[in-house]
Amino acid sequence: MTEYCTLEWIFVTEINHIYTPPLARLIEQLQKLPGVGPKSAQRLALHILKRPDKDAENLAQAILDAKRRVGFCQRCFHLSAEPICNICSNPNRDEKVICVVADSKDVIALEKTREYQGKYHVLGGVISPMDGIGPEQLNITALVERVSREKTEEVILAINPSVEGETTTLYIGQLLKPFTRVTRIAFGLPMGGDLEYADEVTLARALEGRREIDD
Amino acid sequence: MTEYCTLEWIFVTEINHIYTPPLARLIEQLQKLPGVGPKSAQRLALHILKRPDKDAENLAQAILDAKRRVGFCQRCFHLSAEPICNICSNPNRDEKVICVVADSKDVIALEKTREYQGKYHVLGGVISPMDGIGPEQLNITALVERVSREKTEEVILAINPSVEGETTTLYIGQLLKPFTRVTRIAFGLPMGGDLEYADEVTLARALEGRREIDD
Repeated sequence: MTEYCTLEWIFVTEINHIYTPPLARLIEQLQKLPGVGPKSAQRLALHILKRPDKDAENLAQAILDAKRRVGFCQRCFHLSAEPICNICSNPNRDEKVICVVADSKDVIALEKTREYQGKYHVLGGVISPMDGIGPEQLNITALVERVSREKTEEVILAINPSVEGETTTLYIGQLLKPFTRVTRIAFGLPMGGDLEYADEVTLARALEGRREIDD
Repeated sequence: MTEYCTLEWIFVTEINHIYTPPLARLIEQLQKLPGVGPKSAQRLALHILKRPDKDAENLAQAILDAKRRVGFCQRCFHLSAEPICNICSNPNRDEKVICVVADSKDVIALEKTREYQGKYHVLGGVISPMDGIGPEQLNITALVERVSREKTEEVILAINPSVEGETTTLYIGQLLKPFTRVTRIAFGLPMGGDLEYADEVTLARALEGRREIDD
């Protein structure tokens, strides 16, 4: 513990020696972002210093604003600045289909395809006993209530095919089957993929999920 | 112009459809940072939303603080929160040697080597007529005054070996030769580099800069 503190102290002295203190603090904060190491943090910080004051103010304001105003949709738990998100409140979308995803970023990915016209339900994670996440930590009870209340015709499970994701898919599938039709998205060779370089599990899934060729 | 506006409008509508507005604005601001595309901006924004409020406040505060407090050292033009930077005000550093660099980030790179114990002078760029940057846009007059006033014994030019960098090096070399000894850093094969893969110019420079092997 003492040794760790000393090393950290040397590191802090070091960056305060090389960078003027407010710059050192900015680099330190930027390094907390995902995928931003010491080099990129320095580059971003020097860029911010070079640009007009207004740019820095806009960025700082956007951070505070997003943090303050964005919460979760009360119905589907997608990120939203309103109590009900704009997907849930859109009357042109099909109320009878709910696509269940682990995270809001999966909603964003699906929306970008412009293929899906139903509603969503965001679980807020996947069942992972190792990380202490059981079904009660996720928005699963709300999903079951919603499906039985809204007379949903189909629930599409779109959860990543990891070990935890599979567990979650099977668990929710069992729960919802008494109420509605439950499907899951297809797994197989990605578009532009190459049979030769696909891993065995993907290929096995692609074979398993084969379909008749339409005439 | 009309078409451009329309396209931009469609884009804005699009991101406001997929992202709730405060999130869309944060992503838009993050995308202005260098090396941050739409995907990374989304990842950074979602990360900021997931972390505690305190983290977002610290980041926003660090941005505003750095922008407000960091200016240039009055003597060497390095980034500094004080009127005189901590390198210039350090009495343990050799006053008689000045290393001339194009940008503050070069000072940072040289400081990280821990090899150099002299002072610096930051030009704020290189001579580049194409971009409208002549000697008068750079801190060159201040350098000449400083060298003649401080009785500097050696000026080391450490400017990138680009076309503009070479021009700047030669120009400053000519200006300072009447006052002091002027040297420039060595160019050659980088450590860990491979003769086979080095470009011709680097190899030619390495040959040209060859030295006697010490006994």
